[in-house]
Amino acid sequence: MPQDVNKRRLRAGIVGGGAGAFIGAVHRIACELDGQALVVAGAMSSDAKRAKESAAAWFLDRSYDSFRKMAEEEAKHPEGIDFVIIATPNNLHFPVAKAFLEAGIHVVCDKPMTFDLKEAEELVGIVEKSGLIFALTHPYLGYPAVQQAKAMVAAGELGEIRKVQVEYNQDWLLEPVAETSRKQAEWRTDPARAGVSCCVGDIGTHGENLLEHITGLKIQSLCADLTSFAPGRPLDDDANMLLRLEKGAKGSLSCSQIACGEENDLNIRVYGTKASIEWHQLEPNYLTIKPKGRPWETWGRGSAYMGDAAKAVTRTPHGHPEGYLEAFATLYRLIIADLRRVKSGKKAAGGYPTAEDGLRGMRFVVKAVESSKAGAVWVEMP
Amino acid sequence: MPQDVNKRRLRAGIVGGGAGAFIGAVHRIACELDGQALVVAGAMSSDAKRAKESAAAWFLDRSYDSFRKMAEEEAKHPEGIDFVIIATPNNLHFPVAKAFLEAGIHVVCDKPMTFDLKEAEELVGIVEKSGLIFALTHPYLGYPAVQQAKAMVAAGELGEIRKVQVEYNQDWLLEPVAETSRKQAEWRTDPARAGVSCCVGDIGTHGENLLEHITGLKIQSLCADLTSFAPGRPLDDDANMLLRLEKGAKGSLSCSQIACGEENDLNIRVYGTKASIEWHQLEPNYLTIKPKGRPWETWGRGSAYMGDAAKAVTRTPHGHPEGYLEAFATLYRLIIADLRRVKSGKKAAGGYPTAEDGLRGMRFVVKAVESSKAGAVWVEMP
Amino acid sequence: MPQDVNKRRLRAGIVGGGAGAFIGAVHRIACELDGQALVVAGAMSSDAKRAKESAAAWFLDRSYDSFRKMAEEEAKHPEGIDFVIIATPNNLHFPVAKAFLEAGIHVVCDKPMTFDLKEAEELVGIVEKSGLIFALTHPYLGYPAVQQAKAMVAAGELGEIRKVQVEYNQDWLLEPVAETSRKQAEWRTDPARAGVSCCVGDIGTHGENLLEHITGLKIQSLCADLTSFAPGRPLDDDANMLLRLEKGAKGSLSCSQIACGEENDLNIRVYGTKASIEWHQLEPNYLTIKPKGRPWETWGRGSAYMGDAAKAVTRTPHGHPEGYLEAFATLYRLIIADLRRVKSGKKAAGGYPTAEDGLRGMRFVVKAVESSKAGAVWVEMP
Amino acid sequence: MPQDVNKRRLRAGIVGGGAGAFIGAVHRIACELDGQALVVAGAMSSDAKRAKESAAAWFLDRSYDSFRKMAEEEAKHPEGIDFVIIATPNNLHFPVAKAFLEAGIHVVCDKPMTFDLKEAEELVGIVEKSGLIFALTHPYLGYPAVQQAKAMVAAGELGEIRKVQVEYNQDWLLEPVAETSRKQAEWRTDPARAGVSCCVGDIGTHGENLLEHITGLKIQSLCADLTSFAPGRPLDDDANMLLRLEKGAKGSLSCSQIACGEENDLNIRVYGTKASIEWHQLEPNYLTIKPKGRPWETWGRGSAYMGDAAKAVTRTPHGHPEGYLEAFATLYRLIIADLRRVKSGKKAAGGYPTAEDGLRGMRFVVKAVESSKAGAVWVEMP
Repeated sequence: MPQDVNKRRLRAGIVGGGAGAFIGAVHRIACELDGQALVVAGAMSSDAKRAKESAAAWFLDRSYDSFRKMAEEEAKHPEGIDFVIIATPNNLHFPVAKAFLEAGIHVVCDKPMTFDLKEAEELVGIVEKSGLIFALTHPYLGYPAVQQAKAMVAAGELGEIRKVQVEYNQDWLLEPVAETSRKQAEWRTDPARAGVSCCVGDIGTHGENLLEHITGLKIQSLCADLTSFAPGRPLDDDANMLLRLEKGAKGSLSCSQIACGEENDLNIRVYGTKASIEWHQLEPNYLTIKPKGRPWETWGRGSAYMGDAAKAVTRTPHGHPEGYLEAFATLYRLIIADLRRVKSGKKAAGGYPTAEDGLRGMRFVVKAVESSKAGAVWVEMP
Repeated sequence: MPQDVNKRRLRAGIVGGGAGAFIGAVHRIACELDGQALVVAGAMSSDAKRAKESAAAWFLDRSYDSFRKMAEEEAKHPEGIDFVIIATPNNLHFPVAKAFLEAGIHVVCDKPMTFDLKEAEELVGIVEKSGLIFALTHPYLGYPAVQQAKAMVAAGELGEIRKVQVEYNQDWLLEPVAETSRKQAEWRTDPARAGVSCCVGDIGTHGENLLEHITGLKIQSLCADLTSFAPGRPLDDDANMLLRLEKGAKGSLSCSQIACGEENDLNIRVYGTKASIEWHQLEPNYLTIKPKGRPWETWGRGSAYMGDAAKAVTRTPHGHPEGYLEAFATLYRLIIADLRRVKSGKKAAGGYPTAEDGLRGMRFVVKAVESSKAGAVWVEMP
Repeated sequence: MPQDVNKRRLRAGIVGGGAGAFIGAVHRIACELDGQALVVAGAMSSDAKRAKESAAAWFLDRSYDSFRKMAEEEAKHPEGIDFVIIATPNNLHFPVAKAFLEAGIHVVCDKPMTFDLKEAEELVGIVEKSGLIFALTHPYLGYPAVQQAKAMVAAGELGEIRKVQVEYNQDWLLEPVAETSRKQAEWRTDPARAGVSCCVGDIGTHGENLLEHITGLKIQSLCADLTSFAPGRPLDDDANMLLRLEKGAKGSLSCSQIACGEENDLNIRVYGTKASIEWHQLEPNYLTIKPKGRPWETWGRGSAYMGDAAKAVTRTPHGHPEGYLEAFATLYRLIIADLRRVKSGKKAAGGYPTAEDGLRGMRFVVKAVESSKAGAVWVEMP
Repeated sequence: MPQDVNKRRLRAGIVGGGAGAFIGAVHRIACELDGQALVVAGAMSSDAKRAKESAAAWFLDRSYDSFRKMAEEEAKHPEGIDFVIIATPNNLHFPVAKAFLEAGIHVVCDKPMTFDLKEAEELVGIVEKSGLIFALTHPYLGYPAVQQAKAMVAAGELGEIRKVQVEYNQDWLLEPVAETSRKQAEWRTDPARAGVSCCVGDIGTHGENLLEHITGLKIQSLCADLTSFAPGRPLDDDANMLLRLEKGAKGSLSCSQIACGEENDLNIRVYGTKASIEWHQLEPNYLTIKPKGRPWETWGRGSAYMGDAAKAVTRTPHGHPEGYLEAFATLYRLIIADLRRVKSGKKAAGGYPTAEDGLRGMRFVVKAVESSKAGAVWVEMP
C-alpha cells in the first residue's frame, strides 16, 4: 500500500539539467532544500550516455533517455514521481509539459513558459483540462523582501503607485557566443531554440513578472527599443522600454546581457504618493522604504517586525543571509504544499506563478519584439 | 591706477539670490571658495527693501534694486565688477544676460539658459558678438569623479559605448505647490516663469548635460513620456525617455520631482565593450569601474592614481569628502581662470558649459516636450 | 549486500535540533543541500514525545529518545548512519560525541566543542584514538569569499600582516532572558549548560576562528574586558579584546549580544604591507581588497577571476547570491567528501575545523574569561 | 572710525599654512566659506621668501616673516585682524598662541593643542587670564550628522549607553617617511616637532574628542597598545585601545596610519539600551539609527525631520552633499558668531572645542603613551 503522501517526502523527476547545465542543479537543490521532496528519476539529456551519467551523479533511482518514455513509465510506477521539473531549453518546454500533463503528472516548468505564443495559449488549455498543478519558476518572487514589498503595496502603505523602474542588467553575452565558454549561451542566442527574443525572453520577463507581482498593476502598453549589440547575433541582447501601467502609473524597464561588469543586477523601485520601495537582488536580504518626510528605512529579512507573508518564507533568523537558492526553494515550498493539498483532496492555495502568468510573460516578450520591429512604437498589452 | 587683475581677487556681482533663495548662497560660496573672487555688488531682488537687506547680510559694497541700473553703473565704476552671476528665475535669464553682456560685463548664468528656445538662439548670437565669457552652471561637471569618468571614456578605456542610463529623481514637488513651503516650487511650476517644462527643464537637462559631457556622444533622437502627477500642476513633474546616441549607443533617462523619498538621486551608468562606469551624486567622491573579467574597482577622489583632469579640480586629499559646493566652486575656478586669461589678453581655455551648451539644453527640453505631446513618439535632436 | 558508499547518498543522524531549535534545521538543510547525504535517524529531544514528533516532521526513518541507544543501535543497523550531527546545548556535546565515537560513528559537532576545557582535552584524545572524523561547524569558513581571503593571505598578496580587526555584534540578548521569547536565550545564559561564557563562547569563538583561519596567524596573548550588561545575567554578553598575534601583528576583537539593532554583524579587516582585505558577513558574496596605491577592488563570488579555493565551494554563478545555509553546506560538502574518502580506504583531506581547532577555541574562551576576571590583563594563549 | 563689527566681514590672520601645506588652505576656505570673514594677513612660513610668496598667492594685504612681529603689529593696526589661525606643526602651537593671546588677539588653533602636557596646562591658564576666545579645530564635530547624533544621545533616544566603538584608520604613513612625498609626514613622525605620539596625537585625539562629544561620557580609564610598524619610525603609527567610560559604558578605539588602503576611515558606533547610532566620516551626510525592534533608519543631512542642532549647521538642502570643508567651516561659523558676540559686548555661546578640550586631548595622548609603555596596562584618565 502506498505510503500516505503527508508522511513522506514527495518524489520528483527532472527533464533536462544534465551535467554542465547550471539550472538543473539549482532546481534539485531548491526542490529538496526544505526536506519535503527528493529527485528520484530523470531524463537529464537527450544524449543517452550523458543522461545516464548525470542521473548517477545525482544518485537517481531511475534514469531515462526519453522524456516521453519517462512520462509513460513514471505514471505507471507504484512509487512513481509526484511531479516533474522541466529544465530544458525553451523549445522543449511545451512538448515535455504536454507529455507529463497528459500522463497525469504535475509540472514545475522553467521560464519562459514556451517557445512561442501559440504554444503558450495551447498549454494554458491543456493545464486547465488536466486539473493538475502547473507552476512556473520565477524565483525572485521567493525572496522574503519581495513578499514584504508586495504585501506593503497591497496594504496601501505606498499610497497610489506613480512610477516604477525595473532593471536587470548582466554581461554574460558581452562577447559573441563563439568567444564564450558558457553552454547556455549557445541556445539562448539561437532563434530555433530560444524563440523570438534572447534578452527580453530570458530576463526581461523576470522584470515584468516582478513588477506586476509587487505592484499588482498590469502593464497596459509598452514602447520597446531592442538591440543586438554583439556582431552577428540574431536575437536581442539589450532592451530599453517605456511602460504605462494600470491606474495611470508610468514606468521603465531596462534589461541587458551586454552590460559590462554587471552580475545579475536586478533592481526595482516603486514610487507611491506616501512612500517608495527599493530592492536590489544582489543584496536580497534588505528592503529599503523611503516614506514621505521621514528617514529611509532598511527592513531586514528575518526581523520580528516583518509581515506574515515574508515570515512565511523565511528560514533563518536575521543576520544569517539567505540567497538565490533559498528564494528558488521558496517557490518549491509553496508548490509542494499545494501538491500535498491536491493529493489529499484539498484545494490548491497558489502563491506561485502559473500557466496564466506564463502566457502573460510570453505576450510581453512578443509585444516587446513587435514594438521594436515597428521602430520602437507604443503597442498595447492585451 | 587699477590693480593688476592677477594680483587681486576678482569682483563679482549677483542678480537674484535674495534672502530665502537657495541657489544665491550657493553661487556666493562657490564663487568665493578658492579665494579668487569676492561678491561685492548685487541686485538681489526686484523688491527694493529685500534687495537692500540681502546685500547687507552679505556685506556687499553696492546694492541695486534694478539689474539694468547695476549693469550700467558697474560698467562705469572704477572698481566695477569683473563678472555677473545670474541667479534669478528662468524667465529673467535672457534679459539680465543681455543687459550685462551689452554693458561689456562677463556672465555666469544658472541653467536652463533661457525661458525658451528663441531666447537661447538669440543669446548665442549676443555672446558671440560680445566676445565675452558666458558660462552656464551645470555644477555636477565639477565633481572630480565626473572629470575622471569623462577622461577615461575619452581615452578609450571603456571601449565602444553601447548603453547609458541616467536618472535624476527628487521628491520636492511630491505635493501640489500650495501644500509645500519651498519658495522655489512656486515659480518652477509656473509656465510664465519656468517655460515649457518643470522637471525636464530643471533636472532633466542636468542628466542630458552630464551624459553628453561624460560620453562625448550627442543624443540623436529621443522618445519622451512626460507626466504631471500632482493634481492641477500645469507642467511636467516626471519623465521617462528612451535615447538614441551617436555611434549606435542606446540609452534611457528618467527624471522625477515626485519620486517619494528621493533626495537628488542623480546616477549615471555608462556601459562599454571593455568596461563600464557608474557614478552616484549622493556619494560623489567615488567612481565605480567594472572592467570586463576583472573585479569591480572603486576609484577615490584625491587618490594618487587619479588622472590629471580629476586632480586639477581636487582640493582635499582622499578621505576628506568634497561635496556639491566644491563641485560648484570648481566651475567657478575654471571660469575665473579664464577671466584672468582674457583680462590679461590671453585666450580662454574653457572646460565649463557655454552658451552653445545652454542652447543644446534648451533644445533637449523643447524636443522632450514635443515628443511627449505627440504621444511619446521619437523626435530628432538637431 | 550494502551498496557502494560512492554510489549512494550518505546517511546522517542527528542528536538535538528538535522542533523550535534554530540550528537543527540549519544542519539538516546544510547536510543535504548538495545531494550527498540524507538525515535518516535522530534523537531529536530528550522529551520522548517531542523527539518523535520532530522526527516525523522530518520524515526520518528511525527516531530515538536516547542518544546512547541511538549510537548503539545505529552502529549495528545494516543501513545505519554514516555520521552523526550534534546540535544540542553545549553541555551535551562531549557525552554525545564520546558515545558515537566509541560506537565507531563519525561526528559533526556544533561549536563550542565542549562545556569546558577539560572535556575538550579529553575529546581530542578520544578522537585520535578512534581514528574517526570529528568535524566542528564554524560555518563562516564555508563562504567562498573567506576561502578567497585565506588563499590571498597565504599567497603573500597582502605582504606582511600588521593589524587585524574582528567584530561580531548581535542584539538578541539585549533584554534579560525573561523578557525574550527565544528558546536558545535560556540555555546560552545558563552557566550550567553554556559553560564559563555566553558571548565569547557563542560568537567570540567564531571571530577567533575566522581570524586565525584567514590570517594563518595564531593569537599569542590577549587582554579581554568582558561585561554582563543585562541586569541579573550570570555570564558575559559583551567583550572587547586586544590581541597580539604571531609575527608581531596586533589586533582587536569585539563581540556583543547586546549591541542594539545589530543582526550578525560579523566583520573582519586584515591589514598587510601590500594590501588589506575586508569582509562583511551580512554581504557575504563580496570581498573588498584595498591594494597599496591602487583603487579598491570588490571581488564577487562566482566570478571567473576568483581563485581555485573559492571556486571549489561555489554553487551558483555570480549574481545569484549565496548565503549562510550555503556556507554551512560547504562545510558538509568538505566533510562528506572526506567521509567518502575514509570509507573508501583513502586518506582524509581536511579543510574543515577539527577537534584540535575545537580545543583551541575552548582555550580562547577560557583565557578571555581568565583575563577579564583578573581585571582585563594580558594572558598568554598556549 | 572703525566700521561696526556686525556690518563687515571679520579679518583673520594665519600663522603657518604656507604653500604645500594641506591644512593651511583648508583653514582659509573654512574660515571664509560663510562669507563672515576674510584672511587678510599672515606669517605663513618661517622662510621669508616662502612666506611672501604664500601671502601673495592668497592676495593677503599684509605678510610677515615672524609671528611675533605679526602679533605685535596687528594688535596696533587700525584694521588689524580680529583673530589668528594657527596652522603650524605642533611644537609651535603654544608659543604662537601665547604671543597672540598676550597681544589681545583671539585664537583659532589646530589640534593637538600643544607639544606637551605642560604647555597645555599653561595655555589653559593664559587663555583664562586673557578673557579671549580660544578655539580648537576638531572639524568632525562640524558635520550635521554628528550634531544630530549628539542631540539624540542627550535627549535620551538611545537609552543608556553601553558600548562605543571608534576607529580612525589611514594609510599615509604606510611607508617609512623617506619613501613618501608628503611634506607633513616629516614633522608628524619627528618627536621634536610632533611630541610624544604620532598616530594617537594626530588622529586618536579626533576619535577621543568625537566619542566624548557625541556620548557626553568621559573616558575614565584606558588600556592602550601602541605600535611603530614602519622600520625606524620613532613614534607610534598604530594603536588599539580598550576604554572604560562613565556610567559603566565600555568601548574600544583603534587608530592607524599604516592601514593599507584606508583613506580617513573614521567611524563611530554608539550602542544604547533603546537604539544605536552609527556614523562614517566617508559618507558624512548620513546617520544610521538602529532602534530596538524596528527597521534601521538612515537620517539624511538637510532633511526636514532633522533636529535643530543639525539644521543650524546645514547649508544645502538634502541631496546636495556637504563634505569636510563644510564641516570645518561650521566650526568657524560657530567661532565667528561668538567673536561677533564678544566684540559686541555679549557673552560667548560656545559649541566648539576650547582650551579645556585641548588639555583633555593632550592628557588622552599622554595617558595612552604611558599605558603602552608600561606594557598596555590600564591607566586612569584624570
